[in-house]
Amino acid sequence: MLSPQVLKRVVTALKPYASCDVADALTRLKHKGGGFLPGIVMHSPQYQEGDAKIVGPAHTVKFRHNADKGFAPQIEGHYIDKTPSDHVLFLAPPANITNAVYGEIMSARLQRLGAVGTVIAGRLRDANEQRQMNWPVFARGVGTTAGGDACFPSEMGVAVELEHTEGGKVFKNTINPGDIIIADANGVVAIPHGLAEKVVEIVPQLVKADQACLKDVLDGRSVTETFKDHRGRLQC
Amino acid sequence: MLSPQVLKRVVTALKPYASCDVADALTRLKHKGGGFLPGIVMHSPQYQEGDAKIVGPAHTVKFRHNADKGFAPQIEGHYIDKTPSDHVLFLAPPANITNAVYGEIMSARLQRLGAVGTVIAGRLRDANEQRQMNWPVFARGVGTTAGGDACFPSEMGVAVELEHTEGGKVFKNTINPGDIIIADANGVVAIPHGLAEKVVEIVPQLVKADQACLKDVLDGRSVTETFKDHRGRLQC
Amino acid sequence: MLSPQVLKRVVTALKPYASCDVADALTRLKHKGGGFLPGIVMHSPQYQEGDAKIVGPAHTVKFRHNADKGFAPQIEGHYIDKTPSDHVLFLAPPANITNAVYGEIMSARLQRLGAVGTVIAGRLRDANEQRQMNWPVFARGVGTTAGGDACFPSEMGVAVELEHTEGGKVFKNTINPGDIIIADANGVVAIPHGLAEKVVEIVPQLVKADQACLKDVLDGRSVTETFKDHRGRLQC
Repeated sequence: MLSPQVLKRVVTALKPYASCDVADALTRLKHKGGGFLPGIVMHSPQYQEGDAKIVGPAHTVKFRHNADKGFAPQIEGHYIDKTPSDHVLFLAPPANITNAVYGEIMSARLQRLGAVGTVIAGRLRDANEQRQMNWPVFARGVGTTAGGDACFPSEMGVAVELEHTEGGKVFKNTINPGDIIIADANGVVAIPHGLAEKVVEIVPQLVKADQACLKDVLDGRSVTETFKDHRGRLQC
Repeated sequence: MLSPQVLKRVVTALKPYASCDVADALTRLKHKGGGFLPGIVMHSPQYQEGDAKIVGPAHTVKFRHNADKGFAPQIEGHYIDKTPSDHVLFLAPPANITNAVYGEIMSARLQRLGAVGTVIAGRLRDANEQRQMNWPVFARGVGTTAGGDACFPSEMGVAVELEHTEGGKVFKNTINPGDIIIADANGVVAIPHGLAEKVVEIVPQLVKADQACLKDVLDGRSVTETFKDHRGRLQC
Repeated sequence: MLSPQVLKRVVTALKPYASCDVADALTRLKHKGGGFLPGIVMHSPQYQEGDAKIVGPAHTVKFRHNADKGFAPQIEGHYIDKTPSDHVLFLAPPANITNAVYGEIMSARLQRLGAVGTVIAGRLRDANEQRQMNWPVFARGVGTTAGGDACFPSEMGVAVELEHTEGGKVFKNTINPGDIIIADANGVVAIPHGLAEKVVEIVPQLVKADQACLKDVLDGRSVTETFKDHRGRLQC
């Protein structure tokens, strides 16, 4: 995990950038899939559109099936009250449920606690209420039925595993506590905390090159030429 | 099925509530999945947002593959003309087609007939036209190609089965004619008609407890405490 | 492929119609699935809503996995610069990747080149930027990570194959270069170029019949009667 000082510097440095910019940096650093978490999209403050963005370290919560109650650890009190300020709440429910593990009251509490936003590898509910309170929520989909009947919050601050299937292939991602989440209308990216400072170092060059390419293309130059000129000269 | 008088009372009583409230009541009544029908989302009057809501008894229509023509029953005349007023048209096409079994003309007819809205366990078409006529439609997705080439309306007023796969698990739901449908931006819930009066009885208490929790949380109390206070005292 | 004169006439003739109208014509011509390409939806200029529509011949680009580099053909220079004016760029990346093979700079270039719009059998990125430049993009979903790490543009102007699974059934579609693409809020339809003139011939009759049906239904007639009157008399 990053020290509080480094973390603050990293988050501040990343705020001007988009999830795509950070994915470009992670790709250049050979990080698998550029850190993209497929299947999770913006549901609030708008559905898949608008300029909302969140940047912050992940506070992970791992849920387990109710069948594991008594065998697996269980969080004492309500997990939501333990969310640290300036963090992104990152919820990992079991994949094979259709319950919505997150709703309006949770967002109201997070706002009070000074958190940054919510990412759910599952379903949210109270979608309109989330939007009315302007709280950023990224999720796989909506639902109506609370999670309690299917699963329980078992552990906080542990690594969580996500799976997504596309074209018959299974994509796996591990989110560690303190990994930096950046999420916007294009999706959710997780920066492993060990790569965060490196990302901060190279992302400005990449974005500068892209902006130069875009300007040239708008001026009528070919992409072939402008990529050679601006991306070809990158030193990272 | 409920008598017309009871039905009217139930629908009127449920109108102020959200699909999530009803799912909470059904969960408390031990009804599987809180009645949620996963995979079907609001497409009209807006796409996955806005305050539109429908409440009413299901008028089911079961479609079959064209290969079954001649062997399976077939509805005489056009099924849409037989939709009773104050009902939600609930269409169940075969799962393994990509055709859109429902379009603009159907909604125009339903409006005239005094129906309440449309739920399709499949695809709709004429999405913009549905929105322009402010007709509520919930569906799995959009499409361009009419259903006639793939399937036909075989029976009305019969039980229909829905399947949805999530995280490798198959979720099955049966909708019986007269089950009460409540659908909004969070999704679609089906109340078995035998549980409808019980839902009406307990949903106000649950919502009152939730509102008290939300108020407390907005005032800065922890969720742990406020849940203990308000949800812990519920008598249902 | 159609001659430039015929192509121009076909595209002009189709512009007033919707993807659904064209799918109706293709269904009547016994073309499988009415030409619908399931799973690809409008992402820009708006997400799944609004009146945007594109009509034009497909300029196909087939991507291959990076593992095939050196064995498979590779396009020299950047493929985007070779997109012909008045065409729809049709990108076919491998199905089993989560990378976004298309972004803002590509749209800026296409606008300059006088193309018509973009269809991606995969993910786009820079969703908001696409909307700001009012560029029409249809895709399977959004993403953050550029395609270069997973695949490369291998061939242009070749047949491309799409797969989509629904209800356990695999739907396959082949898009040939020069097939006419028509796409709007209901989805994407591909007209095989050999059927394009036939579609132009019959689509006005179908739409006229539908408009007559809609008018009658709004006037209170049954769908049974109005379909018999207007659709039953069609000569195509």
